[in-house]
Amino acid sequence: MMSVRSELLERFLDAASRGDEQTLSLMLSQSRELLDRRGEQGWSALMLTARHGHYAAARVLLSSGCDTSVTNRSGQTARDVALFWGHRHIVRLLTSAPGHELRQLLPSRDAEEPDIHFNREILDRMSDKRSDGEWLAARRASPETVFLLFHALSPLVLSGAEEDEEIKLCKLRSAAVQELLTDSRTLEVFLGVEKQQEGDGMLAWFALSTEEDPTQLLKDKDPSSFFLQGAMPGLLRLSADDAGVVAQARSVLAWHSRYRFCPTCSSDTKVEEAGYKRTCLRAGCRSLQGVHNTCYPRVDPVVIMLVLHPDGKQCMLGRKKIFPPGMFSCLAGFVEPGETLEAAVRREVQEESGVQVGPVHYLSCQAWPMPSCLMIGCHCVAVTTDIKVDQNEIEEARWFTRQQVMDALVKDKRAVFIMPPKQAIAHYLLKHWIGCNANL
Amino acid sequence: MMSVRSELLERFLDAASRGDEQTLSLMLSQSRELLDRRGEQGWSALMLTARHGHYAAARVLLSSGCDTSVTNRSGQTARDVALFWGHRHIVRLLTSAPGHELRQLLPSRDAEEPDIHFNREILDRMSDKRSDGEWLAARRASPETVFLLFHALSPLVLSGAEEDEEIKLCKLRSAAVQELLTDSRTLEVFLGVEKQQEGDGMLAWFALSTEEDPTQLLKDKDPSSFFLQGAMPGLLRLSADDAGVVAQARSVLAWHSRYRFCPTCSSDTKVEEAGYKRTCLRAGCRSLQGVHNTCYPRVDPVVIMLVLHPDGKQCMLGRKKIFPPGMFSCLAGFVEPGETLEAAVRREVQEESGVQVGPVHYLSCQAWPMPSCLMIGCHCVAVTTDIKVDQNEIEEARWFTRQQVMDALVKDKRAVFIMPPKQAIAHYLLKHWIGCNANL
Ligand SMILES: [Zn+2]
Ligand SMILES: [Zn+2]
Repeated sequence: MMSVRSELLERFLDAASRGDEQTLSLMLSQSRELLDRRGEQGWSALMLTARHGHYAAARVLLSSGCDTSVTNRSGQTARDVALFWGHRHIVRLLTSAPGHELRQLLPSRDAEEPDIHFNREILDRMSDKRSDGEWLAARRASPETVFLLFHALSPLVLSGAEEDEEIKLCKLRSAAVQELLTDSRTLEVFLGVEKQQEGDGMLAWFALSTEEDPTQLLKDKDPSSFFLQGAMPGLLRLSADDAGVVAQARSVLAWHSRYRFCPTCSSDTKVEEAGYKRTCLRAGCRSLQGVHNTCYPRVDPVVIMLVLHPDGKQCMLGRKKIFPPGMFSCLAGFVEPGETLEAAVRREVQEESGVQVGPVHYLSCQAWPMPSCLMIGCHCVAVTTDIKVDQNEIEEARWFTRQQVMDALVKDKRAVFIMPPKQAIAHYLLKHWIGCNANL
Repeated sequence: MMSVRSELLERFLDAASRGDEQTLSLMLSQSRELLDRRGEQGWSALMLTARHGHYAAARVLLSSGCDTSVTNRSGQTARDVALFWGHRHIVRLLTSAPGHELRQLLPSRDAEEPDIHFNREILDRMSDKRSDGEWLAARRASPETVFLLFHALSPLVLSGAEEDEEIKLCKLRSAAVQELLTDSRTLEVFLGVEKQQEGDGMLAWFALSTEEDPTQLLKDKDPSSFFLQGAMPGLLRLSADDAGVVAQARSVLAWHSRYRFCPTCSSDTKVEEAGYKRTCLRAGCRSLQGVHNTCYPRVDPVVIMLVLHPDGKQCMLGRKKIFPPGMFSCLAGFVEPGETLEAAVRREVQEESGVQVGPVHYLSCQAWPMPSCLMIGCHCVAVTTDIKVDQNEIEEARWFTRQQVMDALVKDKRAVFIMPPKQAIAHYLLKHWIGCNANL
């Protein structure tokens, strides 16, 4: 025979399943210990209200102080159950973690991906062709194929003299680079074929690089062409199309320039897969068994974040000593091994500014080929506001008001700081915050 | 004196600024060429309606077929202008890119970050202490400090015999590891101090690893302790707390095991910064000037995505030959140099399945220490549906219905496939899709 205690629990759980909030209230007033007791499969009353979507009944249990963190034998909390069965109002009810209100401050994403500098992709990488020697040879020989020249990681370009004029990549054809192509010192990276091509008319692009000035081996060098001096700010003056191609080419070339030797055994390596693999030349090296990241280009994930004040009306920006005078920008830092993006955002903000961060939202990212970073742009909301800067990382960090950011954005004479350039994702993170909240 | 043409344009643009849709309609019926003409600073009529938030006037211009892609001298489209000034209804009106409706199929994120295996962080990394030799020595000597042992990248653990029992990390104290700490062959990685500690009572954690079995140098080895054999599935049986610590430790140790030599010049390196840096021992090496990624642990970003069918009712899963029989999971692949996350998702899905992808939404990520990946989990929507598998990548890919995924999730006897384990972010991507759309 069932004990009175078991019978009471069964009636209580049944009331939860049916969404009978009156019975739940009444029974709790007589026997509060029912609140978090569990029945079959470890289901609590709260889980049963979550299972069947009984909102009012769930609120009765919550206001009685029931434990939302317990799990059933499948390891699900009541919130998991509500999520699984699609009762979104219950999910919201159970989402009362600290910081929930702070999330309301985060602007939503744009419907479309923003066209940030370095991100545009005019080429289809066609990675399956990288190991197809015959196909590559045919592309290399095609008179239409485009070759970009690099020296010390800088592209050969053409441009007028004006400082605000666009810099153009110098696009060479097969005929011009024959000598370079046959020179054993030339490093070649297959970049892809132009998208939007019809039928067989594939227009392939390659990057070529040599340690010595490769223009010496050129036929008919354009006298107005030159290698960019340093990456910045020259690469920011490329067109969006050219910048995307350079992001790919420069990242791969930067890897080659730093990873010539096998880091596992110190032997020399050879280039394979059209520039996307370096294979150790020592038979028996561990890196030859299985797949190892030592053989492939490196991409370093970096988080970059706009920290919003909990009042929703200010954001934090910092400046590094190397910034131009007056410029402030978003905080940023490398993602560490074993870390999530969200954890990296919280750690970096805490390390650099002493401010604690709650909710983090990914917004957009940017390829950043200096040398090969992936900038992962986030908005996040602070839960503390006192700034204590780590002088090793940045020299200053401050809260700026919406008006101050707007003034800087439109370069008003009242502006109290200078924005990062529009080609940087930091600029986009700021502009997006302003744009989405202008009516607050 | 102003030409008639200029005067007409000025009146037209003025009507746009005022939101006078009648005048706009009338003038367009007489002179359609006004539609996309631009005035001061390159502003079109559409931009002016966007600037001032005139919805009806903007619609008149749009229905007349005006060009939404033109930009003013600041490089802003009408949509940018609307976004900047916070006129969200105009932003929506101007967001008519293909794929806009498809976005509605994407579930929104959870309000809280999911607690996925390997992601929990019980330690504060305290990276500023990594170069503080004195502080580290004091932590190392503290009797409470926790030491984890690793051999061949596997942690020393304790567990019962049952296959479903949790595996526990073997946490050693200073006294037990004295010999290991003084042995020059020992690699040491400072992991951090426990969060939630009060005052000075910092409880630090270190990982120790040697090429030979390090338990030989242990005082009082627990006879029930053993090194996990291989990472999988053992690491999935750790508690959430332990898994997070192992994610960090194993990623860093895996880097040390593969990157002993300077890849720039092939010299040997020494370990610095408490295990987070390797510095080339050859004076004059390029890697010693400036900051180079060759000196720091590698983190490889990987995109992993659940592809949703444009009907919103199916999703695509694939299987690799190495999967257990019957298991299907999300497609995934490494982010390439110079590529955004969204571009990587589209490229990988296209390469592996032949399916074209439209909108991509980041959902959540997972640290994956085999050896050191950052799994970036996304939902995306397909714009084509014919599957053509690349047999080099996966052996099969199929569309599964919501019901089939639900059956697999609850391990119903009707299930036609096996889910990835709940510790994998692929499981979360599937569960989230089901949970958020159960009412569709
Ligand atoms: Zn090697
Ligand atoms: Zn070196």
